[in-house]
Amino acid sequence: MNAPFDGLELGYDVPALPGMDEADIQTPCLILDLDALERNIRKMGDYARTHGMRHRSHGKMHKSVDVQKLQEHLGGAVGVCCQKVSEAEVFARGGIRDILVSNEVRDPAKIDRLARLPSWGARIIVCVDDLANVSELSAAAQKHGTTLECLVEIDCGQGRCGVDTPSAATAIAQAIAAAPALIFTGIQAYQGGMQHLENYVDRKAQLDEAVVRVKAVVEDLRAAGLKPELISGGGTGSYYFESGSGVYNELQCGSYAFMDADYGRILDRHGHRIDQGEWKNALFILTSVMSRAKPGQAVCDAGLKVQSVDSGLPVIHGRDDVKYVSASDEHGVIEDMHDVLRINEKLKLIPGHCDPTCNLHDWYVGVRNGRVEVVWPVSARGKAY
Amino acid sequence: MNAPFDGLELGYDVPALPGMDEADIQTPCLILDLDALERNIRKMGDYARTHGMRHRSHGKMHKSVDVQKLQEHLGGAVGVCCQKVSEAEVFARGGIRDILVSNEVRDPAKIDRLARLPSWGARIIVCVDDLANVSELSAAAQKHGTTLECLVEIDCGQGRCGVDTPSAATAIAQAIAAAPALIFTGIQAYQGGMQHLENYVDRKAQLDEAVVRVKAVVEDLRAAGLKPELISGGGTGSYYFESGSGVYNELQCGSYAFMDADYGRILDRHGHRIDQGEWKNALFILTSVMSRAKPGQAVCDAGLKVQSVDSGLPVIHGRDDVKYVSASDEHGVIEDMHDVLRINEKLKLIPGHCDPTCNLHDWYVGVRNGRVEVVWPVSARGKAY
Repeated sequence: MNAPFDGLELGYDVPALPGMDEADIQTPCLILDLDALERNIRKMGDYARTHGMRHRSHGKMHKSVDVQKLQEHLGGAVGVCCQKVSEAEVFARGGIRDILVSNEVRDPAKIDRLARLPSWGARIIVCVDDLANVSELSAAAQKHGTTLECLVEIDCGQGRCGVDTPSAATAIAQAIAAAPALIFTGIQAYQGGMQHLENYVDRKAQLDEAVVRVKAVVEDLRAAGLKPELISGGGTGSYYFESGSGVYNELQCGSYAFMDADYGRILDRHGHRIDQGEWKNALFILTSVMSRAKPGQAVCDAGLKVQSVDSGLPVIHGRDDVKYVSASDEHGVIEDMHDVLRINEKLKLIPGHCDPTCNLHDWYVGVRNGRVEVVWPVSARGKAY
Repeated sequence: MNAPFDGLELGYDVPALPGMDEADIQTPCLILDLDALERNIRKMGDYARTHGMRHRSHGKMHKSVDVQKLQEHLGGAVGVCCQKVSEAEVFARGGIRDILVSNEVRDPAKIDRLARLPSWGARIIVCVDDLANVSELSAAAQKHGTTLECLVEIDCGQGRCGVDTPSAATAIAQAIAAAPALIFTGIQAYQGGMQHLENYVDRKAQLDEAVVRVKAVVEDLRAAGLKPELISGGGTGSYYFESGSGVYNELQCGSYAFMDADYGRILDRHGHRIDQGEWKNALFILTSVMSRAKPGQAVCDAGLKVQSVDSGLPVIHGRDDVKYVSASDEHGVIEDMHDVLRINEKLKLIPGHCDPTCNLHDWYVGVRNGRVEVVWPVSARGKAY
């Protein structure tokens, strides 16, 4: 076992190296089931293509140039969306050529950095929900001799960012269209608030309302002589609604590629959990049992520092006999009524919420047929600026 | 404002540089109030010294060689404790010379790495709660020609790791004492389960029970001819109990240095919150308002990727007029009933739980008198192996 850890002996902390047996991976770490990942990516790509939709995969979930490239090459993704300028910088450096910052950028230094990015060879699109932002973006793009594309963000019912009325959207769109170095490209219309509702009909009802809002904005824009090129939105819990809406033309799904415990529990239109066929769990936290000083209980090495529990505790994959019942900083307590777990036994945890969990890690260890095939950096890990 | 961001323009993502005005710090990021930090560190150091206790500051909280050195130089800390071999490696590389891994290490590759560390010039101590671990540690230390010191971990009532009975503790201690290349150094007796109980008397009651357990183990060890050098434990919610116990001689406090919202709410023996005098908040998440498309509400740029909400939402420091009410991946929603917040206005959030929040960040920005004085790496960020 020592030879593969030369990297670690040099202080180069990677949990695994390509070619290593899966059993030798150091825990806790993130592992990707490459067969499941590629299957999910191909499936979403096929869906988008057969439904005439563009798919812009959401890089805020994986924060990985390598996963994004797989989504483009295997899944036909047209580009990436992300939430922060620092993420956009990582994707641009990594060679991604069509980048939407699906969020507002208001800080002067961040606007300046964003406006430099088109000169790195990438199409850069950003969201706007405030008229005052238009002149800021325009000035920065002019300063750098670049062009920024803009989507007007509308609130689809989540009640967070985005304008509420067609007239507000049109006023911003007109300002963008008139501003030097900016292009009015379309509408950001993501309904994030309904993605995790368990029942299909509840999700559909909320997305139907969002579609009404989007159509009203599109009509108002057209009346003002503006034609949105992109109407972008949709997530893993809703993409079929946007695809069938007749108004959206671009999807922004993220979690479908990895899946997680919270998303996995929502139901498709047949009443089946979406992790039981629609998508496969491709992301796991690999953890080891490191203490079992109490009968009926084991302690593993995966706690709050390797996962976000905002959407609930992780689920132990493929095991009905043991249950992860509490998390502290570095430990997970596992109920093990029949004392079946052994010291150093490895378990695969399906994290409660994939996005903030991935953001805690430096590496994805990609496995197939019991072997480590790739070790990918979480390229934009920690990029929150 | 551009000049200080040359670092950022090169893609070197730091939120600030020393000498910069506090107002120019890029958000979201962690900032340290250096006056408050130094005051907390000196205060705990004074307490330990005047009470005849060693203080081994807990590096799992800050994961920073620089903060640890401040704790040693200003606060007289005797060394560090941490939870993972990879953290111990970082502290050893950083020049810390007395390191306790206050946790069990069972994986063969991790044991091998741990056993190398004394040759880097550091005293290395590790916890044991299973007889089978003794021969593993001994073999690895012999292989590397080093010596590992061991504490027997006893369960003080938290019900996680650690043995339950004096006889089990003594059996392990005897095995350690008899094993080549190991030294029996004492007892790890941290009661983590009671640290966050709100009331002083409730905490005292649980710690009183822990002291009974510790004394029983010490008596049993002495009857077997074993003399523990260190009886180590204690946290920010309990250190006065261990100090007055007559049996503990080493404290392991961590959160006192930074404070957080969840710890801040617990009460001292006078019924005062511990963040209202006993300790000062030194750690904040600096965040900016980036959208306010709705009346009564602002949205800031600090969500789940820059903080752990396992112990509750953050509290906005020094503001009674606005309230952080929900967190999503990249956004925080702030209730702002009177619409006082402006775009790009900065707020200081006291995180709910400092340890897993610090672990999300690459940098501490240390500020004093409105200026950035230091920018320290979160040296062991992500070191979970």
